[in-house]
Amino acid sequence: MSNPMFDVIQEDLKQLDAGLLDAVSSPVELIAEVGTHLVKAGGKRIRPALCLLAARGGPRFDLQRALPLAEALELIHTASLVHDDVIDQADTRRGSATANARWDNQIAILSGDYIFARAFALIADGDYGAHVSKRLAELVGNLSVGEIIQDHTVYQAVRDLNNYYDRIRKKTADFLEICCELGADIGGMDRADQQKMAEYGHCIGMAFQITDDLLDIWQSSEQIGKPAGNDIRQGIVTLPVIHALTVSPDAEELERIVTNPEMTDSMVQRALDIVRATDGPDIARAKADEYLDRARQVLPGCLSPEIDEAFRMLADFIGERDF
Amino acid sequence: MSNPMFDVIQEDLKQLDAGLLDAVSSPVELIAEVGTHLVKAGGKRIRPALCLLAARGGPRFDLQRALPLAEALELIHTASLVHDDVIDQADTRRGSATANARWDNQIAILSGDYIFARAFALIADGDYGAHVSKRLAELVGNLSVGEIIQDHTVYQAVRDLNNYYDRIRKKTADFLEICCELGADIGGMDRADQQKMAEYGHCIGMAFQITDDLLDIWQSSEQIGKPAGNDIRQGIVTLPVIHALTVSPDAEELERIVTNPEMTDSMVQRALDIVRATDGPDIARAKADEYLDRARQVLPGCLSPEIDEAFRMLADFIGERDF
Repeated sequence: MSNPMFDVIQEDLKQLDAGLLDAVSSPVELIAEVGTHLVKAGGKRIRPALCLLAARGGPRFDLQRALPLAEALELIHTASLVHDDVIDQADTRRGSATANARWDNQIAILSGDYIFARAFALIADGDYGAHVSKRLAELVGNLSVGEIIQDHTVYQAVRDLNNYYDRIRKKTADFLEICCELGADIGGMDRADQQKMAEYGHCIGMAFQITDDLLDIWQSSEQIGKPAGNDIRQGIVTLPVIHALTVSPDAEELERIVTNPEMTDSMVQRALDIVRATDGPDIARAKADEYLDRARQVLPGCLSPEIDEAFRMLADFIGERDF
Repeated sequence: MSNPMFDVIQEDLKQLDAGLLDAVSSPVELIAEVGTHLVKAGGKRIRPALCLLAARGGPRFDLQRALPLAEALELIHTASLVHDDVIDQADTRRGSATANARWDNQIAILSGDYIFARAFALIADGDYGAHVSKRLAELVGNLSVGEIIQDHTVYQAVRDLNNYYDRIRKKTADFLEICCELGADIGGMDRADQQKMAEYGHCIGMAFQITDDLLDIWQSSEQIGKPAGNDIRQGIVTLPVIHALTVSPDAEELERIVTNPEMTDSMVQRALDIVRATDGPDIARAKADEYLDRARQVLPGCLSPEIDEAFRMLADFIGERDF
């Protein structure tokens, strides 16, 4: 799939993909094979794209300097997903076999470590300074912490939306924020504009995750490449479910299902029906739109029209997302 | 256990332990609990001790500058062991419950990631320069690669000793080499002396792993805190076994056992008896001594008598090790 908002960095992204394959190459055949599979099974490259766009938005853009940072960001994302898939015992991701399914847990855990290490090697090679290294180390730490918190609050019908927002911030928004901020940093934007780009990334990330969670409720498995109701099945309550737990006439039944680690497929289906019958999906959509409006507002004035337009198109795209 | 060769850095190691606990602290209680357990269950602190001794051996030693590096080295080791224990489904390590046994695989995988990230955060904070970051990223990558190679050559009766030496270099000697080299680096030794310290670390590491492998054949489970014959059980052939596969009159029986993933406890015991009846253990001991002699020879002349003595005592200690 080609995202129109990435047209301006289409050539950059080709180089990025080549760089990613190079980063996971190894004289050990098995490792090269796993790395190549994971890079090729990769998704929309939103994180490196944000970094590259932000870097292009600055006064001192240098593609060869920006690429290793963008690659490291994608590799950190990849490694983190590889470990999540082991934990979730997931067989597929984005329609491709996970590393744990295609090889085994052992390979998946160690390949994840290897890919994290390759990301930090790219950062060390790039010599971006202690600030960048520190932000990325914090990012990896916070991703793990966020995942631990999420995994240990599953099958709880927590009705507190702040808890939900905090969770998706740690899971997605902080990451997209860092991509924009560090891209702006190495592109040479001043600190004020870096912070605006960081806020754009945060808002895009919140909207993206809310939309993602909404799609899990709303879409068929063909469209999103994983079974609908996957979050509910894993005991993760998202915005529409939290809302339904408050407003649905069937809230008690919904609570019994989402707090039951042994729930069956038909129970998941019933939970989806209950949530879909409420205005939870509309509320989630409205909240995502609110974040997207804020994202558009906060874009710094220093951006060239072309880059500004790309960032606006990304916001539009997330608002209309149905993949 | 107090290692006499570490007397000269006894106070440093106390500060190191405090720093390690601080590094794994977290506002999230569960994470702090796992981190504290892992740090307290930690072993002999050989890696940070080597780093601190080498740093003290240099002309520009600064404890507060050396400590975060030493802590990062220990955290990388800890994180790596946490993931190994998940992979090996190990219940105990050094007599303490593993993270996967005390909590679960999920917590163990994510805590390992968290601890890796904390190590890289310490390095970023320390601002040691791109060289140090790069060496550590390579180290983590190579540890994963070494483990993947080892895990995918199990239950094979490979008789090639070079294969064995290569394996223990990746598993242990490279790590100890980096500890010595980077300690010497931040202590201000010149490049030639850094390389001598690196070679000392390499030799100590080779001897240490050969001895460790030997103890797995030779000792009772009480002495080493894990069952004897553990390597054989896991399909890992070490120097004495490789030797026995060549010289023992019962070599064929031994090969049938070590290549059988379904081997029983009595088969492990029989394999141990076959290996112990050969001169394999003596050969391993002689090889370890050879490395230790080289380690003593290569120590740079710039060391103070006190530090030089500590490094020699460590070589002696490994030579006499029976724990």
